[in-house]
Amino acid sequence: MCTIANDLAVVEPRIRELVQELSDAPATGTVADALQQVMGEVVDQAVSSSQGGKRLRALLSLDAFDALSGRADMRNAMIDLACAIEVFQTAALVHDDIIDESDLRRGKPSAHKALEATVHSASIGRGLGLMLGDILATACIEIARRAAKQLENGDAIIESFLTMQREVEIGQVLDLGVEMTSLEDPEALAQASLNVFRWKTASYTTIAPLLFALLAAGVDPETARQRALAVGEPLGLAFQLADDLLDVVGSSRNTGKPVGGDIREGKRTVLLADALSAADAATRQELMDMFEAPHRDETQVERAIGMFEQTGAINQSRQRIAVLWHEARKAIADWQLGEQSNQQLIEACARFIPADLR
Amino acid sequence: MCTIANDLAVVEPRIRELVQELSDAPATGTVADALQQVMGEVVDQAVSSSQGGKRLRALLSLDAFDALSGRADMRNAMIDLACAIEVFQTAALVHDDIIDESDLRRGKPSAHKALEATVHSASIGRGLGLMLGDILATACIEIARRAAKQLENGDAIIESFLTMQREVEIGQVLDLGVEMTSLEDPEALAQASLNVFRWKTASYTTIAPLLFALLAAGVDPETARQRALAVGEPLGLAFQLADDLLDVVGSSRNTGKPVGGDIREGKRTVLLADALSAADAATRQELMDMFEAPHRDETQVERAIGMFEQTGAINQSRQRIAVLWHEARKAIADWQLGEQSNQQLIEACARFIPADLR
Repeated sequence: MCTIANDLAVVEPRIRELVQELSDAPATGTVADALQQVMGEVVDQAVSSSQGGKRLRALLSLDAFDALSGRADMRNAMIDLACAIEVFQTAALVHDDIIDESDLRRGKPSAHKALEATVHSASIGRGLGLMLGDILATACIEIARRAAKQLENGDAIIESFLTMQREVEIGQVLDLGVEMTSLEDPEALAQASLNVFRWKTASYTTIAPLLFALLAAGVDPETARQRALAVGEPLGLAFQLADDLLDVVGSSRNTGKPVGGDIREGKRTVLLADALSAADAATRQELMDMFEAPHRDETQVERAIGMFEQTGAINQSRQRIAVLWHEARKAIADWQLGEQSNQQLIEACARFIPADLR
Repeated sequence: MCTIANDLAVVEPRIRELVQELSDAPATGTVADALQQVMGEVVDQAVSSSQGGKRLRALLSLDAFDALSGRADMRNAMIDLACAIEVFQTAALVHDDIIDESDLRRGKPSAHKALEATVHSASIGRGLGLMLGDILATACIEIARRAAKQLENGDAIIESFLTMQREVEIGQVLDLGVEMTSLEDPEALAQASLNVFRWKTASYTTIAPLLFALLAAGVDPETARQRALAVGEPLGLAFQLADDLLDVVGSSRNTGKPVGGDIREGKRTVLLADALSAADAATRQELMDMFEAPHRDETQVERAIGMFEQTGAINQSRQRIAVLWHEARKAIADWQLGEQSNQQLIEACARFIPADLR
């Protein structure tokens, strides 16, 4: 586990360097004097928005690569590919924050809010924020393209990177769709929410990092896809379920986030669906009224948490997570790695699930 | 010239087919029943937003490929690469319309407006519109990636496609920067506007279509870049200057657009900069007051057009266009193609400039 700190010490400055280069105007032309200020402001914001992630995805990809391949000559390219996943996440979050009208991200102003303040214009700042998301989304593909050239299965890596990006974009569409889903059919809501987790979260959090490592280590693309999905899908679903659960029960992990944030925002989660499914008629009606209202106050948030507990929804999420984690572990065993590599990969995957939920 | 109709007859349905496939969820997973409706609505909108372009960029790329290469076995891949440019344009326009809060595009509701109506929610519809732009921006790279595999210089084509995308994104940032540029220094404004034309228009309208054709025909990447830039930069600048000029003097080309639309919106154009540069103190002040105000009425629009005429700004734009067109023609001659190919390429390029402005 001592490589984590080392990897972070390499990944963090490398992300900065790559974002600095690739969010700026390419060398194919020059920028007019009068426009250099705005260009500089966007690059600065790109660098700032790229900071502060936990880099779980990059670390998983690097650890999986190390477990699968001993190729030291390829490790720098693998680091860049791992950075590309993180830059993609930043791109997605920048647009996410515009869609959700979020003012904050990782404790700082969100990209479009920061740019609004920098240029003293809400409309131009928001426009620059939207473009910053576009710039980072293209930049991460260019990072992946350069890295893939030095790795095994280069073309399959690029193809998989683009598929990952499409999956997350589809996931965002489906997530907006969940907000329009009726609360009358909680089984359908639970299924829809889990489906969004697969597209919007598991895709780039666990499936793609594992897939890139398998491909870069020379595993044939078809086998690599099957293996990455078998481990990454349950692991990614468990990760998102744990994240939603911790939002309700609290934990040291999500410091700074007040408990019940998802409930306050009226988010349609698997927890809510499970509570609606198990509730008696009166509780169910109360929950439905609460979540169909435009806002929920602190008393209602506490009451909803109580109902999630009483109906057994919280316990059911714990069970869901444990089953998915078991499934992921079983799928890792199917990779038939040596004992040490197997252990290394299990530890890398375990980082996505708090110990008391595994 | 008889190939244009044939090419259009192939390009148009191919764009539809590619967008239909690549704006939908990839085959790597399934979409939950409750979410299939929203997914279908986004795919339908992707197809609808992709229709109705003049396909000038695709035609230039195909004509240049035909002038440079006789490889019939590669033409289908070249058609797909040409479609990728058009899909990229749609992606860029979808985000452009969100930034500019435009309700209409190509005579139909803009993507986000159409989606707002479809889902009966302004915030969710706008979010889906933003994601639709993201989906198309990724889709076009996947189209280019598949096509490039069958063409000469495949990796350089992908690299150039990503560079083109970055250039346009930078151009959009700089265009927002121009809106914040002072009118006190018209020379700097003219320089800044022409700079935006290079990044935001010439990049994907003329430079990239020519570059893809050169690369696909097997010209070495360094030479290809120089040649594409030498022709494409002046041609693209002339195209945008002509477009801005026609917005003021009117033409059959831009049917449906009312004359003076740019002035009404207060757009900072080269025409405005040239008028400010040449105007006497009183006219200059009047123009500055007019363009610094939040709105301009019909009388002011007519008055501004009169001032563009009187100051010689309109004539200067005509001259700028003629000089740039001459430069592009000269650069085509430097490619040293055979007489027939040379003529074919000149005709393909001439389509970007109305005959009376060449």
